This record gives sequence, structure tokens and C-alpha cells, in this order.
Amino acid sequence: MKSTNATTELCRYNETEIFVRERNLCTELIGKTSFTEFVFMQVTGRNCGPTERAVLDAVLVTLCEHGMTPSAAAARLTYLGAPESLQGAIAAGLLGVGSQFVGTMEGSATILCQLADSGDGAEATARDIVAQHRAEKKSLPGFGHPHHRPDDPRPAALFAVGRAAGVSGRYIGLLEMLSREIDRAYGRHLTINATGAIAALLLEIDVPPSVMRGFAVLSRAAGLIGHLYEEQRKPAGGAMWKAVDAAVPYEAP
Amino acid sequence: MKSTNATTELCRYNETEIFVRERNLCTELIGKTSFTEFVFMQVTGRNCGPTERAVLDAVLVTLCEHGMTPSAAAARLTYLGAPESLQGAIAAGLLGVGSQFVGTMEGSATILCQLADSGDGAEATARDIVAQHRAEKKSLPGFGHPHHRPDDPRPAALFAVGRAAGVSGRYIGLLEMLSREIDRAYGRHLTINATGAIAALLLEIDVPPSVMRGFAVLSRAAGLIGHLYEEQRKPAGGAMWKAVDAAVPYEAP
Amino acid sequence: MKSTNATTELCRYNETEIFVRERNLCTELIGKTSFTEFVFMQVTGRNCGPTERAVLDAVLVTLCEHGMTPSAAAARLTYLGAPESLQGAIAAGLLGVGSQFVGTMEGSATILCQLADSGDGAEATARDIVAQHRAEKKSLPGFGHPHHRPDDPRPAALFAVGRAAGVSGRYIGLLEMLSREIDRAYGRHLTINATGAIAALLLEIDVPPSVMRGFAVLSRAAGLIGHLYEEQRKPAGGAMWKAVDAAVPYEAP
Amino acid sequence: MKSTNATTELCRYNETEIFVRERNLCTELIGKTSFTEFVFMQVTGRNCGPTERAVLDAVLVTLCEHGMTPSAAAARLTYLGAPESLQGAIAAGLLGVGSQFVGTMEGSATILCQLADSGDGAEATARDIVAQHRAEKKSLPGFGHPHHRPDDPRPAALFAVGRAAGVSGRYIGLLEMLSREIDRAYGRHLTINATGAIAALLLEIDVPPSVMRGFAVLSRAAGLIGHLYEEQRKPAGGAMWKAVDAAVPYEAP
Repeated sequence: MKSTNATTELCRYNETEIFVRERNLCTELIGKTSFTEFVFMQVTGRNCGPTERAVLDAVLVTLCEHGMTPSAAAARLTYLGAPESLQGAIAAGLLGVGSQFVGTMEGSATILCQLADSGDGAEATARDIVAQHRAEKKSLPGFGHPHHRPDDPRPAALFAVGRAAGVSGRYIGLLEMLSREIDRAYGRHLTINATGAIAALLLEIDVPPSVMRGFAVLSRAAGLIGHLYEEQRKPAGGAMWKAVDAAVPYEAP
Repeated sequence: MKSTNATTELCRYNETEIFVRERNLCTELIGKTSFTEFVFMQVTGRNCGPTERAVLDAVLVTLCEHGMTPSAAAARLTYLGAPESLQGAIAAGLLGVGSQFVGTMEGSATILCQLADSGDGAEATARDIVAQHRAEKKSLPGFGHPHHRPDDPRPAALFAVGRAAGVSGRYIGLLEMLSREIDRAYGRHLTINATGAIAALLLEIDVPPSVMRGFAVLSRAAGLIGHLYEEQRKPAGGAMWKAVDAAVPYEAP
Repeated sequence: MKSTNATTELCRYNETEIFVRERNLCTELIGKTSFTEFVFMQVTGRNCGPTERAVLDAVLVTLCEHGMTPSAAAARLTYLGAPESLQGAIAAGLLGVGSQFVGTMEGSATILCQLADSGDGAEATARDIVAQHRAEKKSLPGFGHPHHRPDDPRPAALFAVGRAAGVSGRYIGLLEMLSREIDRAYGRHLTINATGAIAALLLEIDVPPSVMRGFAVLSRAAGLIGHLYEEQRKPAGGAMWKAVDAAVPYEAP
Repeated sequence: MKSTNATTELCRYNETEIFVRERNLCTELIGKTSFTEFVFMQVTGRNCGPTERAVLDAVLVTLCEHGMTPSAAAARLTYLGAPESLQGAIAAGLLGVGSQFVGTMEGSATILCQLADSGDGAEATARDIVAQHRAEKKSLPGFGHPHHRPDDPRPAALFAVGRAAGVSGRYIGLLEMLSREIDRAYGRHLTINATGAIAALLLEIDVPPSVMRGFAVLSRAAGLIGHLYEEQRKPAGGAMWKAVDAAVPYEAP
């Protein structure tokens, strides 16, 4: 653990004032900015204009709720054992927001950045990437969905929001080009999915891939409040327990 | 684990559509509702009007960021050991959003509900509650702050937002009355703090006390993204480790 | 946050030695003490004699594994989304080790301490406690089990270990007396359950109630390793997802 | 989520009996097996002989406690905000048991397996691995320590336990060979560290790399109980908060 001169530029306060990135919380922010605008500003340090706001709102709305996901189930099963700790049940649900579902947006964003860096060679790069994934039998992050066929309905809605809000469309265009290359290479249609579209939209507003997962976690945290409030009024955790127990029976080795 | 007929009313979907509380996600929500409005609707099942939106935005903006809190430190120290899991570092930071800091909003809300139920006897009830807390040397939830003196600046800002947004002002009024009784009984001024004010504001828009902590968790989740993104670019976790190690030296028993 | 002179007496180290509670880790502990003995010593600061060791081993063995519990299911569902973070899946499973299942050992221990403090009046105190719980329709912590009837098989095994290991038997005796009063008051047999028996056993070796839950968490952490290793080789998370989704269908409000 | 015929072979039970991997919990395990033996059997499905027991006890004793680590600090800072949830504070501490500290045992184990697979070419393979890490300026997992110089004292103690307990010594030997190649290539001595030694020991008893981190999590869970029990009696969380706040001051951008 080497000595560091670590500093923070997020927040300072005194007895009567709080400043978040040099804006006075009580006179400049509370009542004058939406939560979405505040979050964009707090995280990135940049002002949240109408374009960023429209895109980030759309992204956060998209990922919040999708029924009895593993994440929602983990939160409800945890609440069954520890109702004294709402934060614990939310945390349990968030711990599954990892590499396999929404975390694929990082992989998708990385590919889109590669394509952007290829300039005129973007189509050739796309063909190479698709060919390599096919050869290694790896799925392409941002494509395919277990429930939604032939097309996940969210990407089109997200692209429309982005374009109406005035993004450049560069990353959306690259994702659509990649999609065409995939369909050609596989000889069948594979949908762009929500995390692929969100990767493109967040790149349009300059959110770096390394922090994208954070916005997915934020959105799911909100969704889990809804699940746990429903759990308080209409408990489902007991039924879930019974269901998982029945679904995975004992079998002697 | 008794058999239950558990159901959910949060979300349904088919191959081409997703409905959250019967609204079509892609045609009615994405691009047409802010994250704050969506969250209010998803959690409570009610439409989010301009009053609810203004109040909830103000509440979420208020709690998001307050510097190097124990929560932010826990998240950064966790990230130091497991940078592969942004969700794990966020979850670690959220696990401290419990009874001692923001969780006091539930205690505060419970007292405000008691006062509301007392009708004309609210002042007498307030005096009793204050006397009882003094006798038991228990702190009154929603009052006092370690840093902000003589007054936490956030309650006034929050009350102004609420009143401008058209809340009835019933719970704000009860909290202000309670504050006067406290000052009288203690013979000195104790500030209403942010969690006290937020308890009143959330009651004004009919958010039940049992789920209030969820909104604090949501707001802090956003704040932790900012801390971890800063940690990625300007690591402070090593300096924190060194600091806690020095702050708590070994002493033989 | 008041200034404190905080110190720790757990561990000190230099470039070539590590001392845990003043024992040299490498020359006095590794290879010379079992994990159970080490844990008892590290947590309590006392030496772990053969009595403490036998009791703590029995307690930790008892709570480790009980099939597809909500805790095991939460861990497996979390692993499905984030296999890169074994620690995250274990943490998710541990977050449900709260007030409703194993956490009842604290309530049970508190009652046993009350009985112990009552001296000759223990039976009268037991009758009062039982009557009060009946009047308030509250379940008695440490009694009853959803699966095991008429008797949870674990308490008898635990008591036998404790007695063979030379505990005084004071708390076991009080729990058995309480059990008789419960059966008399309810007019039917209610089993002592594992957490009740464990509360008594841990009191016999002077483990304070405030930290008992920690040993349950430790034991379950071990059990979850087994579940996640099985999940690596024979994935069940997908089947669990499908099962909870089917078990809690959508119903329009 | 494809349909699966998921089963478990960990545990079955009926009204009066519990079986863990076909052993009767109450008649064959409680009082007849140590926690360490039980855990080895529950996780791996194999009997825990004296060799496995000695090795696993030594491993678990080694990793349990090392002072005010980031993990211990995260747990204590979390407990400060949520003392109602001991499990939450433990979970927060465990979330940092990731790729950067103890998680390096997986990387170390992977290299040792590569060496083992190389048969007579092990030394050449070791030279290649060392050269490649040097060229990429990557640290070699299992080597080096920030505090312990010139040698981490734990590996020698662990190797002695393993050899006395009758392991084959194959992986210990390969790690020692790798250590010699490293010292030669770097022209200076780099210590084998605890996680490197533990990787070798766990391979000696056939614990697969994919689950090794679980045992580190288990050991640290125990250590965190000790930290939180000390925190209950001698709170240090407030001093830690103050220390991290002072260590990372605000600096305007």
C-alpha cells in the first residue's frame, strides 16, 4: 500500500453549506435539477444538457423492471430471512447485475469503440469480429435475447429517443452496421438487445464503458424497491422457496 | 413454508412487448417519462404527477452525495480488492444505509404519523413524545446533525420545493411543530435534519414509511457510481487503507 | 463523528512475524490449532479448550447445510448473473441470514439469560414469558419447525455433544424446562428447534448473544461454497429462475 | 433460460432425519466430525482424511486475520450505519475478497497446473511464464508482499504442515521451482506469498482452482466476526470515518 496524495473533487461542505462539484446543493440543485441530471453531473463532472438527460432517462427507464428476474428473486428470498434490512435485500439483488446479463453492455461498448477507431475500415473490422466470435462459438455481446423474438422491442425505442434528443448517431449507426454483418454471417436474424442499444446510447453521451454497469445497477436498485414493497404487501418469497426446492430435487450421486 | 397463491402486478411481457404496471414500456414510457416518474409509478402503482415528481426529485438529489461517508469509504475499500465487480463495491456501500443514518427517516415518519393521528391533540402528543425520549436519553429521529449547525441547510430547501409543488403541507407543519416543542423542552435549538425533512416530504406524497429507506438506497447507489468512477481515475482506496490502519493502532490487552 | 482513541487487540505484524492475539501465527497456530479453535480464540480472546471446541464444532456442523434454502437459492441465482464474483454470490446468500431463521437464536438466548437471572423463580418467569407470547400471538424463538415433526432431530444430538464435552448444562436445562412449560401452556408438543438448542449451547461456552449470529453466518458461508461448486458443475440457477417465474404469475391489479 | 433437469446431491431430509451427502447429520456427523472435516466433505463430496484435514485447517487458520485490512475496515464502517444487520457488515467485508488480494490464488493455481501438465518440460515452461510476465510488466500471482520482506513467513509454515501431513509435495515443489526461476530472472528475491502457498496446498488435496476463493471467503468471514465483536465493545468505526475523510481531502478540479 504505497503512500498516495489522494483527493476527491466530488463534495465539500461546511456548517451551513454543501457543494457537489462546486454547485451549492441547497440553492442551485435541490428543486432545480432532476435526479437524472444530478446523477449525470455527479458521476461525470459535466453539465447534463437536454440531450444527456433524455438519453439517460431512457436508459434508466429501460433497465428498471423485467418481472421475476434472478435479481428480483434473490432480493425477495433474502427479504424473507431478513426483513429488518431492506438495504440487504436490495444489495443481494444487485450482486447478480454482473457479466452475464446487463454487464454485457461493456463488451458491446468495447466492440463499438473498436469499430469507431477503425474509421473507414469499420465494416471490415466488423466482419472480422463477427467471424472471430463465430469461430470461437462465443455469443456477441449486445445481440440475441431468450424471450424477445424476432426483435427485442427496446432498441428501436431507445434509438428513436437518442435521435430525437440530438445525439450524433455515430455509435447507433455502428451498432446497426454490426447487426447487418451478423445477420449476413449467420444467415439468420439476431436481434440487437437492450444492453447493446444502451451501450451505443451511453457512448453517444460520452459515458465510458468502465462505469456503464453502474447505471444498470442504479436502475435495478429502483426496480428492486418495487419488488420489495410488493413483497411487504403480497409476500411471494415463501412460494419462491417452495418452487426452487421442487425444481431442483435431490438425486443421490 | 406454507403454500401461497403468490402473484405479481409489476410486469408482464411477451415476445414483442413489455408492460410495466400495464403501461407499454416501449411506446408509453421510454422517451415519455423521466426516471423519477417511472420509479414512483413502478414502486407505488400510482401515476406520478408534477407534485410527486418535484418532491421525489428533490429527495433523491438531497441524499445522493455527502463526501467521504462510511458508505463511500466501504465501497472504495471494496473496489480496491475486487475491481472486477463494480456491483459488489456498490452493494458494499449500500449495506451501511441502515438504522443509524438515513434509516432514521422511518422513525421520524412513524412519529409524524402518530402526530397526524392525534388530530387536535397533536401538540400534546408531541410534548409526550419529546418528554419520553428525554427521559430515556434517546435521540429524536430526524433531529440533530454532527456537522451542520445551527441548521442543516437541506430541510428549508426541501420544504420550499414541497410547498411550491403543491403538497398539503400537513406533515411539514407537524415536523415544524415538533421542532418547536423540542427546542422548548431542551432549552436550546436542535436542527431538523435531512432525514427528518425527507420523512415529512415522502409522507406528503403518500410514500409509506416501510419503503422510504429504499429511496435512500437508490439515491446513494447513484452517489456511489460517482465515487467508484473517481476511484477508477484517481484511486484513493490505498490511502484509505493506510489511514484506517494508522487510526486504529494495536494495543495489547 | 466524535474523536475516539480507538485501538484493536486482534492482530499485529512486522516484516517477518504475524501475531493474532499475541500468539505467533506461524510458529504457534498454523499446524497446531484447528480452524474451529482458532476462530473461538480470535473472536473471544479466550483459549479454546476441548469443551469449547466440541461445542463450537457441533454448532458449526449443524447449521451448514439444509438443502435448497432461500439462502442457497439467492446465492445460486446471483451466481447465474455474476460468475466472475464467487464472493458476491456467497455474500448474497449470507444477507438472508437474518432475524427470521437462524437469527432467532438471539431471541432464544435472550430468554435463556432472563431465566438464568431469575434464579429460583425461573419456572415462574418461564410461565410468564410463555403466557405473554401466547397473548400477543408471537412465536417463541427457538421453538417449532416447518419440516421437522414431532421433533427437530438436531437439539438432542447437540445436547448430547454438550454434555459429553463437559458443559455445566445450566442453559440446556433451562431450555428443556421452558419447553415443558410451552407444551403445558399450549396443550400440545412444540419441538425445540436447532436455533434454540444452539443458543443454549453457545451460552454454555460463554458466547454472548450479540455475536451468535456471526457463527451462523460462518457456517452458512461454508455451506454456500458447496452449493456454488455444485452450481459450477451442475447448473441449477436457470431452472430456479424458470421455477420462480412460474410460481409467481402476473395478475393485473 | 432453457429447461434443465437440475438436481442436487448435497442434502435430503424428512420429518425426523437430515442427510448431508448421504451421511446422517445427527447420528454420523454432529459430535463426530470437526467443522473443517465437514466442510471438506460437503464441498467436495469426498471424505476428509487426516491429510486433507491438516491442510485445510492450516489454510483456513492462515487467511483469517491480518489486522485492519480493507475488508475489516469495510465491515466496521458498514456496521457503524447498520448495527441491526451483523450479516450485512460481514457481507460487505467479504465483497472485497476478490481478484486483487486473496483471489490471486486462482491465478497462482492455474500456473501450477500448467507446470504440472508440462511434465519434464516444467522448468522451461516456468521460464517462459516468467519471461512473459516480465515482458508484459504483470506481477506474478502468488509472489511478492507489501509488508513481509524478505520472506512472507506463512509459506514455510504451510509447506511444513503439508509435508508432515503426507501430501505428495508435487505442487509445493513446482512452486519452489517457479520461485527459483523468478529470482534468477529478476536478479533479486521475490517472496512466495501466502496465497501462492495456499494455491499449492489446496492443489495437493485436489481442491479445484474455481472454488479456492470460497475457502478464502470462509476464513475471512470468521475473521470478520472477531472484528465486529470488537467493534461492539470498542467501536472504531467513527475513528475510521474521520481518518478516511482526512486522508482524502477535497480538491477543486
